[in-house]
Amino acid sequence: MKTGGLLFNLAVAMQVKPGDYVLLLSKDQKTYMIKVTEDGTFGTHMGNLEHNEMIGRGYGEVVNTHMGKPFVILEPTISDRMMKVRRKTQIIYPKDAGFIVLKTGIRPGMRIIECGSGSGAFTIALANAVSPNGKVFAYDRREDFLEICGKNVEENGLADYVEFKVGVAGGGFEETDVDVVMLDLPSPWDGVHASYDALRGGGRIASLSPTYNQVEKTVVSMAEEGFVYIETVELLIRRIMARPGKTRPADRMIGHTGFLTFARKAMIKGDEGFSGI
Amino acid sequence: MKTGGLLFNLAVAMQVKPGDYVLLLSKDQKTYMIKVTEDGTFGTHMGNLEHNEMIGRGYGEVVNTHMGKPFVILEPTISDRMMKVRRKTQIIYPKDAGFIVLKTGIRPGMRIIECGSGSGAFTIALANAVSPNGKVFAYDRREDFLEICGKNVEENGLADYVEFKVGVAGGGFEETDVDVVMLDLPSPWDGVHASYDALRGGGRIASLSPTYNQVEKTVVSMAEEGFVYIETVELLIRRIMARPGKTRPADRMIGHTGFLTFARKAMIKGDEGFSGI
Amino acid sequence: MKTGGLLFNLAVAMQVKPGDYVLLLSKDQKTYMIKVTEDGTFGTHMGNLEHNEMIGRGYGEVVNTHMGKPFVILEPTISDRMMKVRRKTQIIYPKDAGFIVLKTGIRPGMRIIECGSGSGAFTIALANAVSPNGKVFAYDRREDFLEICGKNVEENGLADYVEFKVGVAGGGFEETDVDVVMLDLPSPWDGVHASYDALRGGGRIASLSPTYNQVEKTVVSMAEEGFVYIETVELLIRRIMARPGKTRPADRMIGHTGFLTFARKAMIKGDEGFSGI
Amino acid sequence: MKTGGLLFNLAVAMQVKPGDYVLLLSKDQKTYMIKVTEDGTFGTHMGNLEHNEMIGRGYGEVVNTHMGKPFVILEPTISDRMMKVRRKTQIIYPKDAGFIVLKTGIRPGMRIIECGSGSGAFTIALANAVSPNGKVFAYDRREDFLEICGKNVEENGLADYVEFKVGVAGGGFEETDVDVVMLDLPSPWDGVHASYDALRGGGRIASLSPTYNQVEKTVVSMAEEGFVYIETVELLIRRIMARPGKTRPADRMIGHTGFLTFARKAMIKGDEGFSGI
Repeated sequence: MKTGGLLFNLAVAMQVKPGDYVLLLSKDQKTYMIKVTEDGTFGTHMGNLEHNEMIGRGYGEVVNTHMGKPFVILEPTISDRMMKVRRKTQIIYPKDAGFIVLKTGIRPGMRIIECGSGSGAFTIALANAVSPNGKVFAYDRREDFLEICGKNVEENGLADYVEFKVGVAGGGFEETDVDVVMLDLPSPWDGVHASYDALRGGGRIASLSPTYNQVEKTVVSMAEEGFVYIETVELLIRRIMARPGKTRPADRMIGHTGFLTFARKAMIKGDEGFSGI
Repeated sequence: MKTGGLLFNLAVAMQVKPGDYVLLLSKDQKTYMIKVTEDGTFGTHMGNLEHNEMIGRGYGEVVNTHMGKPFVILEPTISDRMMKVRRKTQIIYPKDAGFIVLKTGIRPGMRIIECGSGSGAFTIALANAVSPNGKVFAYDRREDFLEICGKNVEENGLADYVEFKVGVAGGGFEETDVDVVMLDLPSPWDGVHASYDALRGGGRIASLSPTYNQVEKTVVSMAEEGFVYIETVELLIRRIMARPGKTRPADRMIGHTGFLTFARKAMIKGDEGFSGI
Repeated sequence: MKTGGLLFNLAVAMQVKPGDYVLLLSKDQKTYMIKVTEDGTFGTHMGNLEHNEMIGRGYGEVVNTHMGKPFVILEPTISDRMMKVRRKTQIIYPKDAGFIVLKTGIRPGMRIIECGSGSGAFTIALANAVSPNGKVFAYDRREDFLEICGKNVEENGLADYVEFKVGVAGGGFEETDVDVVMLDLPSPWDGVHASYDALRGGGRIASLSPTYNQVEKTVVSMAEEGFVYIETVELLIRRIMARPGKTRPADRMIGHTGFLTFARKAMIKGDEGFSGI
Repeated sequence: MKTGGLLFNLAVAMQVKPGDYVLLLSKDQKTYMIKVTEDGTFGTHMGNLEHNEMIGRGYGEVVNTHMGKPFVILEPTISDRMMKVRRKTQIIYPKDAGFIVLKTGIRPGMRIIECGSGSGAFTIALANAVSPNGKVFAYDRREDFLEICGKNVEENGLADYVEFKVGVAGGGFEETDVDVVMLDLPSPWDGVHASYDALRGGGRIASLSPTYNQVEKTVVSMAEEGFVYIETVELLIRRIMARPGKTRPADRMIGHTGFLTFARKAMIKGDEGFSGI
């Protein structure tokens, strides 16, 4: 059974075994995510860690480098896995990804199109959210991106929940009656018509774009297509340095990742006044 | 089979039937979430809607009030369901909820403790994320809050994934080896020891608090207990009025909901230097 | 001597006398700004205050209403004066005004054009900053706005430093060799050419606009005109509720006032590549 | 007359002469602030600029390096001067400085104490704001900081408006009846009593601190001393990349400089309920 396999790989393993991904934490809060292999060695900024030292150990336990520097063995969360993907593209960050999942109502069992899957950070979050009985259809126009996306999904044990397809948004999607379409494209408006066709009534569309110009063209195109309840937001994340007696926001922060636009498919012809724009 | 029932109620129904919850959208972007009942009537700011008019219709279709004002029938997403709960308490907002879920790595099949479940907005998001084969243990010290939380969860078709328990964090939790503990308490530090005991090695704790003082006491208590990789952030959400030729951020925004603190259980004794504080 | 008069009215008066403006503060942190007149009475939410009770009192002293409710007599600062102007228009807020003054390098003795002076909140800040030997030329296309702007400036004792002119930006300004031009217009690009003509070499232009679209058209027009070093920012202000043991950001905040664009006049023909856009 | 000299040096010079400070701008938006000297040479990332080429030229004109790379000669504004001071300490940024000046109502002719003047960036803004007939009393406990502060003030032509004093806040200030006290100290509460003594009735105090712990201790101490109308804010500045067809907020931003606390001296004994905390 597929689900069982997944749960074993990802969630409830109590002891590290070959093939597992672990997150290693040093005292200076550096983290490494690595795949454990028999007889492997991993070089850190504080010396080498022998994989065999980790195998059979429980999560939360401490292992030492050959220089005697300790690391805690942690289990990578979805957020860790997203941030640690091999990247050939800009990724969607957890702050945005988590909100998109709740806002579009993604849940186990759903069928989702992601167009512009890039390096696959968000594909991992989506596949996790629709498992153990749903599916993500990951489109990208570039085969090299799809390949890296596929590897990232595979390594995170989520390959059963993703189908990869080379294609452009303007060419239409092969699926129909999907629950949600996510667009991460330079020209999201090119994918709006195809998204409308692929979605079931009431289905949700989401789009992420860095510029306000993209947002404006996208919302106009959504309204004309018959999407309603169009909303755009941006999320800012701020790290707080919580330290006894000297707690303060961090000096530097990410100033912008992208604007998020959401809408829903209505069974109407064009903009009948429900778009909100 | 439970899963089947859930999917029918929540995700893939193609036509509205009695007992379903629908989200009604008017042209001025007001929304109502109601339960459809045979022969029911619902009064809006634009006239009455007959439930029988909705039964058998597809999502995305339009119905009219007795005054001829149209509403689109939409399917409530998890975010809608959170925002529309009956409230006796402050709720956790989708912007925070989505990030917590990804950051703590919550996924189908997991066992989660939520302490201070209040009106249950976040309980809905958690139950959705662990379904169809996980469980949320929702604790609150007040029975009246648990009751309203229970009703909200029930009405959203998620009762199979939640167990309700009256109790305070300081009293300890009945569960062990849980994957994640979420604290939404006035004194989160009271729950840190019990959380450590309840979590498996590598398990995650998250805490939401509105004040800096709470955050500071909480992180100190986490570090002393043996939690590592402690991080605190806040998320700000900003609505963008995307309108052709006049796109701008909204005039008003929510200035603060709370600070989010995350950490992981290490198998160590007290603060051995991995806490990051 | 004009300067003397100004200093007397605004800055160093030690005792309240008829004609002075005072800021009255109640325990619940409500403030009123009023002009003190002999035998006057002022109604507050906590009862009436007799003006004669204030006359001859020092700043910082307490007076009581007829119901025995105390108010502290404070001196209005420039920020108070800006926030308390009679308004017929949106005003420029102190957070933006203070930054514009420093960024454009406004100082005593300078000659400034303000186009779109509206209700005059920013005119007050500008007049204060160029006093006691500079001048603000306040343009507005609407006489009714200029009139209210004039009254607000007059009541704040700054009339000697402002000249009012009815006119539109597209029509050109009467002044030349000014140090700074400030545009607060629906179509700031209409005023860019006239601003270039009015400014001396190296002079600064600033523009405030609420929408991205306005900003984009404005910076293009500035670059084409020969302005260089074009920069756009926005400022967000967040109130902090600093209370012993429960310090936190305020629940609500102003989400947006406007984007601020700055540039400087170069003696070049069109965009020679120094604009930065 | 001192004022005349100042205005000549800083504001209205139409042609660059030896001794002037100029801001040099390259096409890639790099800026250098230098003092022009006869026969001087200045090395840039695009080749050397001969000072003699600049002398006699007007602001806004273009000069070329020996490699033929052009720079625009600009006049440094107060904001430029603040950002370009030689630094031995963290500085107060223009976004904060501009707001403090308006909020405390600083104007020409006022007498201001700045305690913790550090490298003098804010001293420059204060001296500019009180000129041509006011005075800033700049205290610092470290002579080496005062020395660099003095040099920075001197080089910006503002020495007539500043007196430098070695001293700590806890030791009291020599001045009385000042209009405003500005504290930039690690322990601002140490300076609250001395500030109360130095201020006239209704005078304003401002304090900048990076941590919320400092803010909390400071507001408590202000309330106990007899300060009223206590307010704390933070200002965030966000750069907008305004570019034709692709306008967006910048990727990175400064996440935090400090919290700003403001209050006013009332002639009361301790906290009589007007503090607002």
